[in-house]
Amino acid sequence: MSVRDLFGKELKVVNIGLSSFTDAVEAAGAKAVQVDWRPPVALEPGVRAALAGGAAEVEKANAKAMKLILSGRPFLVGLEKASEAVPGLKKMMLLHAGPPVTWERMCGPMRGGVIGAALYEGWAGTPEEAEKLAASGAIRFEPCHEHQAVGPMAGIVSPSMPVFVVKNEEHGNLAFSTMNEGLGKVLRYGAFGPEITERLKWMENTLYPVLKKALAKLGPVDLKSLIAQALHMGDEVHNRNRAATSLLFRHLAPAVIRTAAPEDGAKALEFINGNDHFFLNLSMAASKATLDAARGIDASSVVVAMARNGTDFGVQLAGTGGEWFTGPAPVPDALYFPGYSKDDANPDIGDSAITETNGLGGFAIAASPAIVKFIGGSASDALRHTRRMYEICAAENNAYGIPALDFRGTPTGIDVRKVVEKGVFPVIDTGVAHKKPGVGQVGAGILSAPAEPFQKAAAGLARRLTPKKARAVKTRSEDK
Amino acid sequence: MSVRDLFGKELKVVNIGLSSFTDAVEAAGAKAVQVDWRPPVALEPGVRAALAGGAAEVEKANAKAMKLILSGRPFLVGLEKASEAVPGLKKMMLLHAGPPVTWERMCGPMRGGVIGAALYEGWAGTPEEAEKLAASGAIRFEPCHEHQAVGPMAGIVSPSMPVFVVKNEEHGNLAFSTMNEGLGKVLRYGAFGPEITERLKWMENTLYPVLKKALAKLGPVDLKSLIAQALHMGDEVHNRNRAATSLLFRHLAPAVIRTAAPEDGAKALEFINGNDHFFLNLSMAASKATLDAARGIDASSVVVAMARNGTDFGVQLAGTGGEWFTGPAPVPDALYFPGYSKDDANPDIGDSAITETNGLGGFAIAASPAIVKFIGGSASDALRHTRRMYEICAAENNAYGIPALDFRGTPTGIDVRKVVEKGVFPVIDTGVAHKKPGVGQVGAGILSAPAEPFQKAAAGLARRLTPKKARAVKTRSEDK
Repeated sequence: MSVRDLFGKELKVVNIGLSSFTDAVEAAGAKAVQVDWRPPVALEPGVRAALAGGAAEVEKANAKAMKLILSGRPFLVGLEKASEAVPGLKKMMLLHAGPPVTWERMCGPMRGGVIGAALYEGWAGTPEEAEKLAASGAIRFEPCHEHQAVGPMAGIVSPSMPVFVVKNEEHGNLAFSTMNEGLGKVLRYGAFGPEITERLKWMENTLYPVLKKALAKLGPVDLKSLIAQALHMGDEVHNRNRAATSLLFRHLAPAVIRTAAPEDGAKALEFINGNDHFFLNLSMAASKATLDAARGIDASSVVVAMARNGTDFGVQLAGTGGEWFTGPAPVPDALYFPGYSKDDANPDIGDSAITETNGLGGFAIAASPAIVKFIGGSASDALRHTRRMYEICAAENNAYGIPALDFRGTPTGIDVRKVVEKGVFPVIDTGVAHKKPGVGQVGAGILSAPAEPFQKAAAGLARRLTPKKARAVKTRSEDK
Repeated sequence: MSVRDLFGKELKVVNIGLSSFTDAVEAAGAKAVQVDWRPPVALEPGVRAALAGGAAEVEKANAKAMKLILSGRPFLVGLEKASEAVPGLKKMMLLHAGPPVTWERMCGPMRGGVIGAALYEGWAGTPEEAEKLAASGAIRFEPCHEHQAVGPMAGIVSPSMPVFVVKNEEHGNLAFSTMNEGLGKVLRYGAFGPEITERLKWMENTLYPVLKKALAKLGPVDLKSLIAQALHMGDEVHNRNRAATSLLFRHLAPAVIRTAAPEDGAKALEFINGNDHFFLNLSMAASKATLDAARGIDASSVVVAMARNGTDFGVQLAGTGGEWFTGPAPVPDALYFPGYSKDDANPDIGDSAITETNGLGGFAIAASPAIVKFIGGSASDALRHTRRMYEICAAENNAYGIPALDFRGTPTGIDVRKVVEKGVFPVIDTGVAHKKPGVGQVGAGILSAPAEPFQKAAAGLARRLTPKKARAVKTRSEDK
């Protein structure tokens, strides 16, 4: 009896190089990749068989999904109030990062963000009132991802907030994200109070109209091109966005001068110049617009969302509709800022892993050795992370290239089958929030996504594969 | 009898690795450096002995020179008209790139630049008149380098042109450069005529006052910090300046909005946004200000200028005063644009090799694989070029680091003794001008500096070393 892998292929030889040789070559900074073989991840009974049996069907669906993803052309087309642009965002509703979560299960920083948003919207006059209101059920909480939106960290989107409107010009779908608030005490890390409300109001009343007018004058901004250029300039557009922010700034500034009152325009540009992460929310919305085009392709094992609400880590596949596959969000092994430790850290949080899902962030970290250096690693670590991600992806990006790899396309389109077969989990660049609301960022790091959401996603896909094929292979399979 | 090298050290073992091993490791993208041993460069009789005998004196002088160079802090402090700021720039005088050259020996693109400048200054009404004027001796030609200035390609500085004023805040010396005109038909590639005059006039009458006012509002701009950041963003600030231009742009724009008439400000920012090389002239002036601090240190073998006038390649040392050591400028083996070949190329031209002299450009090309890719090479070629330059430098830079080498400081401070001892010549990123005036850029490439200027510079230094010591070693030396 032959042994088959998840792809329906007969296993013949597993060629594992001598690790001492790889070590020696890697010590010299070489490209050699040690095939770090791990046993396949445990799966529910029948899942392995169903996936192997449906391999042809899945491959076909994945080819379609990757064609849709790689052909995406996300453009920044404007800015609008969330209440007017984001589908289904009703009064007394807040959107949040990650899979669905109730107030009771919400982590500290997300609760902080909810309190801050309630104060900003005027739903409550004090943090205590806001907390009561939230606990009363009067505020409806729904995931950003279920409203064509994404948000970093807590990811709170409230009706009065302005949002970037990103359009996938190739496929017509839209995605939304708020504007990045900068560093320090900010809503996305769960801060609330007068300082936060004042900044959000300034963003609503000054920054928003300045940028809206400038954009109207300029016309759509090609985000795919900006991101591709930024990858040649040391960004991976998740934890490092300095180049992309600079390129966007250059593009916007002449139009800002022509359309804004001078002091408003100057303040708006200073705000962007003061925040190298300004582009992050656009990188996320561009990734969301790109990936959403591949939703709803039956049988596809390609991941279209990885998102964390600070409690759960959730995954969605192209082939499994709106279903979330979740497991506990891990606490990152990060570089903690002085005075903080892992004890202070909230579990991983934010929709920003949409960048990794789109072949950016940790998947493109070889383009951004500065990030690895910041957390104590080396340039060769950065190369190693990206190289490993090729093992679990369905394709190489056609637009996003990595200079240090001779502009090889970034690993793009996570195939959940490869993840569970190889035991290699997506690498995610992340900022770490304090577990208490309002403290802010306490560290930064690189983490591996947890196994459980991918195990469940594999099972979820297996359940949906054409039953005939799934049954046909069950007889010749050995499930763990 | 023992054999001594130029540094006075007894030679014991030359360890040359198996090149097949190096090739294999390099094929895998490794850091391994093949020690490409070449016979020492031929030197005039007595030179080798004098340098070896004066080794201690030279080392001491070089330590001083490198301390001055590495401690440099170049700031952009303002803009002025060249006639008012550049020392010794008189009426009917033009500054040019490279070592001194007469009209008779001037190459095509430099003649074109002279004609263009004469038209711009109103010294002549037609190109023919300008040519006659130049040939008559009525225009005095002097090197930029002899007026604390630097210019890319033809490097023409005329009295009416605005110049950046860069101050070395650590040592007090100034350096000057014109503003970069952009690409296409431009004076620095030898173009002249109404279009060129019009652009230069706009730069004088609009761009200059806009930037001057913005800078006055902002205060000095730290160029060392900008360059250091740009090296982490894919620039080597010679042939690639996109990041540095972006960072400068971000810094300037809010002040431009606050101080300029809106349409002038918008046009000025659009001009900078349209030219990724805008920062080049500042990178050059920053390098000039940094290196000039180390001029006039007796016995130092550190190179303080490499410059080409399109006819001659010239070198100046810290220890040899204002003396130029020259040889014919080579025609680059470049990637030629469609329709052009090496037959069209002018010999190497421009003061921009001041960047390499300061540990940037070709010396920092490992930070900028996109440049190597553009001319058909790979990321590992870029690493190889930078690694080789460590062999001929006196120090590693304290501010300029290379991400792909784990932020190792760039090779800085070319030691002419190492160049002639190892037969390794400085690698220079270069644009190639058509040999006829006004055609413009026809290619880009990476070239090795020619041997002759370094052979002469070594001899020039040897002649100046304390005669007693030089004589003392003559008896035990074998010169070629």
